[in-house]
Amino acid sequence: MTRLLELPAAELLDRFASPEPTPGGGSAAALSGGLGAALVAMVCAMPKTRTGAAEEQARLDAALAWAREAGGRLRALVQEDARVYDSVVAAYRLPKATEAEKAARKGAIAVALARATDVPLATAEACLVVLKAAQEAAAHGNPNAVSDARTGGALGFAGLVGAAENVRINAGSLAESGALAVERVEAALAEGRTRANALGIP
Amino acid sequence: MTRLLELPAAELLDRFASPEPTPGGGSAAALSGGLGAALVAMVCAMPKTRTGAAEEQARLDAALAWAREAGGRLRALVQEDARVYDSVVAAYRLPKATEAEKAARKGAIAVALARATDVPLATAEACLVVLKAAQEAAAHGNPNAVSDARTGGALGFAGLVGAAENVRINAGSLAESGALAVERVEAALAEGRTRANALGIP
Repeated sequence: MTRLLELPAAELLDRFASPEPTPGGGSAAALSGGLGAALVAMVCAMPKTRTGAAEEQARLDAALAWAREAGGRLRALVQEDARVYDSVVAAYRLPKATEAEKAARKGAIAVALARATDVPLATAEACLVVLKAAQEAAAHGNPNAVSDARTGGALGFAGLVGAAENVRINAGSLAESGALAVERVEAALAEGRTRANALGIP
Repeated sequence: MTRLLELPAAELLDRFASPEPTPGGGSAAALSGGLGAALVAMVCAMPKTRTGAAEEQARLDAALAWAREAGGRLRALVQEDARVYDSVVAAYRLPKATEAEKAARKGAIAVALARATDVPLATAEACLVVLKAAQEAAAHGNPNAVSDARTGGALGFAGLVGAAENVRINAGSLAESGALAVERVEAALAEGRTRANALGIP
């Protein structure tokens, strides 16, 4: 499978625009979070802090570590989301002529959908870390870069919204495990909205 | 200057994370809008529509044209934002030893900041088109792809928020022309928030 983030960025955008099922919204959500994480890391890594106090530097160092860790996870999730969604498509295409085939197909679909729920849930949770790091960057970082910290937060929140859409749609066909994933992603979304409000994101 | 969208996507993310001033939030906002446009175009280009009615197909064809046109503009704005912001940095670095140098520097900064306000304003307005196309895609497109249309809308809105941050910060140092740009971007932001609400984006 193509390593999506190794493609030239313009070609990656073309892949998202193509009518092929992957990469789709789940990978785009992870990419948005990864882009937000990169902007937040930039602000946290600047030599200048808001007032120059030592405590600020320590908070920005911690936020930089969060942004880098979450950003690395989100980059991996761009690929992972496409991989698991391809499995869902493959499972639906399994033969269903006999009872045995029908049962095997049903099982394969359930397994694939469970993974296709876990991956955007992981994306949503990593996007929440981006928002948390964006708040630290906006509060303690270089005041000239507040717009970058807020933009990073807005991208993290968009990733969270997109990931939640994907959890809901894929969990819809699952039983209890689906309900649990939806509950977790709704909690992440509510916390994310509160953090976005604190950052002044409309 | 490096053509940013020709870089492998992972390397482009590294550039955003680096402490170099560009690419920064303005380019990230345009990229977010471009990614949103790609997802919306994918939904509009699907052979299946919500109910299969002919009118739906016509609306999706129109929305596809908007998404492609806005997406193309946003891709160009990724580069353009980095270019104009580099000019702002260069203007601030001009010599200021004599009165003549001071006057020349002041003029160069004003020109550069005016361009660095126009570019994110264009980004904001293109992101609004992405949101408009996302609403059409969600209302009339393949119901299985509603999550993709909404994710595209969320990315368009994040791009609009990020672009507005950049208009505000760069317009802050300008006189009347700055106030006009801020007024226009606040209007775009308000319309974008209404469209995001209609899409169910928190």
